[in-house]
Amino acid sequence: MCPKNPLVTVDAVIIFKGKIVLIKRKNPPFQGCFALPGGFVEPGETTEQAVEREVFEETGLEIEIVKLLGVYSDPSRDPRGHTVSIVYMALGKGFPKADSDAQEVKTFDPRDMPEMAFDHNVIIENARSDIHGILSGM
Amino acid sequence: MCPKNPLVTVDAVIIFKGKIVLIKRKNPPFQGCFALPGGFVEPGETTEQAVEREVFEETGLEIEIVKLLGVYSDPSRDPRGHTVSIVYMALGKGFPKADSDAQEVKTFDPRDMPEMAFDHNVIIENARSDIHGILSGM
Repeated sequence: MCPKNPLVTVDAVIIFKGKIVLIKRKNPPFQGCFALPGGFVEPGETTEQAVEREVFEETGLEIEIVKLLGVYSDPSRDPRGHTVSIVYMALGKGFPKADSDAQEVKTFDPRDMPEMAFDHNVIIENARSDIHGILSGM
Repeated sequence: MCPKNPLVTVDAVIIFKGKIVLIKRKNPPFQGCFALPGGFVEPGETTEQAVEREVFEETGLEIEIVKLLGVYSDPSRDPRGHTVSIVYMALGKGFPKADSDAQEVKTFDPRDMPEMAFDHNVIIENARSDIHGILSGM
């Protein structure tokens, strides 16, 4: 029998050229919706390594983690089942390029974010002061 | 086949009467060692609910969460397998009483902590400024 624990995911609020980086999801759930880059943590990697890997796979960007923003664990946040997401704020470097798991990579002004998948709009709302702090120091 | 994700746990750095609350572990690994109260997150509960439940089960204390301290996910932190621990700082209320999962509940002066299980000494070291901040405001 499988352990019945929730699954661990990571997501990133990435600041890149003064904007926030989102991907358009290629797969269900929320197929075609914008979302923060992220995904499942694999065994043998830290959550920091997982978020760096997922962001690179989805956006082509390398990131420098700035801080841990929060942990989102509402059992209803993902329709596939209970996930616990560790969310980091990061600075993006390189050239954005949609890859295997994303239809599109797009940057948004933090004051004009689209409707997003999962609880990602809540994550952005809760990160407002951190986003503002980074942008005003640039 | 079971998903190969790491398992999610929670741990608490609890301030109670100016000291830090530890339990003596009843079960392996680190049987008989002191440790921060905590345990596995169950499906259907948030990480905040999980840490409140685990602390109450192990120590008899109710807690008020003060802040998220960090996420510890080194794959070698638990000899049973890869766990990702979400660590909260909390204030304890009530009367400490060892319960089913703990041999003993004991409070320690933060300047004189014992050798602990897992990476719990590292967690306490990283939490020093937060612990000091709370204690100096009491």
